[in-house]
Amino acid sequence: MVVAKKWIYAKSFTGYPTDENFRLEEETLADVKENEFLAEAIFLSVDPYMRPYMLQYPIGSTMIGGQVAKVVESKNAKFPVGAYVHGNFGWRTHTVCNPNKGDPNSPPYVLPDFGQEPLSLGLGMLGMPGNTAYFGFLEICQPKQGETVVVSGAAGAVGSIVGQIAKIKGCTVIGIAGSDEKCDWIKTIGFDHAINYKTADIDAELKKAAPKGVDCYFDNVGGKITEIVRGQMNTLGRISVCGTVSCYNQNKAMVSDPQRDFVWKQLKQQGFLVWQWTERWLEGIQQNFKWIQEGKLKYRETVTEGFENMPKAFVGMLKGENFGKAVVKV
Amino acid sequence: MVVAKKWIYAKSFTGYPTDENFRLEEETLADVKENEFLAEAIFLSVDPYMRPYMLQYPIGSTMIGGQVAKVVESKNAKFPVGAYVHGNFGWRTHTVCNPNKGDPNSPPYVLPDFGQEPLSLGLGMLGMPGNTAYFGFLEICQPKQGETVVVSGAAGAVGSIVGQIAKIKGCTVIGIAGSDEKCDWIKTIGFDHAINYKTADIDAELKKAAPKGVDCYFDNVGGKITEIVRGQMNTLGRISVCGTVSCYNQNKAMVSDPQRDFVWKQLKQQGFLVWQWTERWLEGIQQNFKWIQEGKLKYRETVTEGFENMPKAFVGMLKGENFGKAVVKV
Repeated sequence: MVVAKKWIYAKSFTGYPTDENFRLEEETLADVKENEFLAEAIFLSVDPYMRPYMLQYPIGSTMIGGQVAKVVESKNAKFPVGAYVHGNFGWRTHTVCNPNKGDPNSPPYVLPDFGQEPLSLGLGMLGMPGNTAYFGFLEICQPKQGETVVVSGAAGAVGSIVGQIAKIKGCTVIGIAGSDEKCDWIKTIGFDHAINYKTADIDAELKKAAPKGVDCYFDNVGGKITEIVRGQMNTLGRISVCGTVSCYNQNKAMVSDPQRDFVWKQLKQQGFLVWQWTERWLEGIQQNFKWIQEGKLKYRETVTEGFENMPKAFVGMLKGENFGKAVVKV
Repeated sequence: MVVAKKWIYAKSFTGYPTDENFRLEEETLADVKENEFLAEAIFLSVDPYMRPYMLQYPIGSTMIGGQVAKVVESKNAKFPVGAYVHGNFGWRTHTVCNPNKGDPNSPPYVLPDFGQEPLSLGLGMLGMPGNTAYFGFLEICQPKQGETVVVSGAAGAVGSIVGQIAKIKGCTVIGIAGSDEKCDWIKTIGFDHAINYKTADIDAELKKAAPKGVDCYFDNVGGKITEIVRGQMNTLGRISVCGTVSCYNQNKAMVSDPQRDFVWKQLKQQGFLVWQWTERWLEGIQQNFKWIQEGKLKYRETVTEGFENMPKAFVGMLKGENFGKAVVKV
């Protein structure tokens, strides 16, 4: 009979969590049944996402999160006794798991061979944060050699990896972090520049570090830092929104924050100027003409007569007086 | 000797333009030289973009914009006398043009055959606004059959086309426009629903019209309407930012508006959850492991000892006390 310890979400988070928000409990586990295994936690993860995510769970839930655990009993051949696994078991010392049940997005898995590296990397560089950096930066930012990349939360689990991957890809990398010690550290792992957002004039320092502007921004924080970086983005810049840690401990309703919407709903927003497609210009005209001829596109025009009425037509259009396209006939 | 009339940008725009902002002048044109042609305006365009763009030009410049014109004299075989052309000649009745000079993004071109349709369409559905709708919606929103599409500025030159293209692609289409007459009109051309933003409770009406949420948003306006629509976007939703007409007549510095940054700099912003790449999970771990072995990725961990210290480790991480990944060792 195994007794697990587990941490309970005891009280709703408001502001930074305190001891009041948590309660340690014990739970006597059921026997291991067909397809199940019993795992004993070795390393547990604490991550920023837990702060906003827990708000969705009822009070009394076990705290969520990933862990690296050892299989100590098993009735599932894929998870044999002695294997090291990653599982989203929550803040628990022992867990009976049926890998066929639970969230299909994050099933438990046996860790690949890490060679001489510590098992704890299964929660960091060789786990969720590592993959967050790898996919979230490379797939969304599509960095090119010689580009300038900014990373906020640069000394964190994800940011510190993103900056190094950006260096591997031949970019100039600027990290934004919250202390001089962090800034010193990220420079030792390869960041070209580091800005301490608590003491520096971020806008001025960023202009100095990125004289050609910013091509890619990997955003862990949101808020004011993001506004400053966005203001220095280059044409066709890419922003990967990973987190909004700067507002995790505020008590705003979750839906009211646009940055958070971007992450949780995985939204894509792209601005454009039509000249982006200059080389395909006639394709657009020909397709639209075809649709007109087929009766699928209908138009209406607001025609003002007389070259002398250009200003009038312009202001009328700005005030929304037109239906469809506003033009002036000479 | 040809005398052109032209409209001059006489005074900086503040708020809605008035007569004071414009001045009509005459200009005696030089003779047509080798490679040049003389064009006589037939239709001129007035477009929302002119309002913010002119702020970049010095007082005394000719107002910018496209026109459909007839070639009346030519020393360029590609633009023969009698041809109808589109040119970004500005607010002018007559223009001597060398097509090899000027903005390479928008060179003058002879209009394709429009059949029985009016030449003015070269400024609308078969010109810049039509291509803005065609490329800006299809390329960025990538609409799929059965999805729900919202278009703001829906009765305008671009919006009225976007909605119809969305119908061609099999989507449910909701238009947001500024009068009941406009709402009635866009329904006659195929929009499924129309919301008058000046009188309706937009949030409530949108929930009714889009009970399954919004997949694509083609945004011509920015501001409050955009906030409401974004709040009703579905997971993996796409927002194409075409314009921010709601703020064109405000007098804010141009760089301070994030929506405008998106358009002018053609920025892309995408939020993500790492589970998007669950099927490629081991690829990420293996690549990062390889980079560790090659000495290209360096890590640092902040390890807290003891399961009983989970809350402490969690709060410390939220306060930024960690370097690299924060974990707890049981």
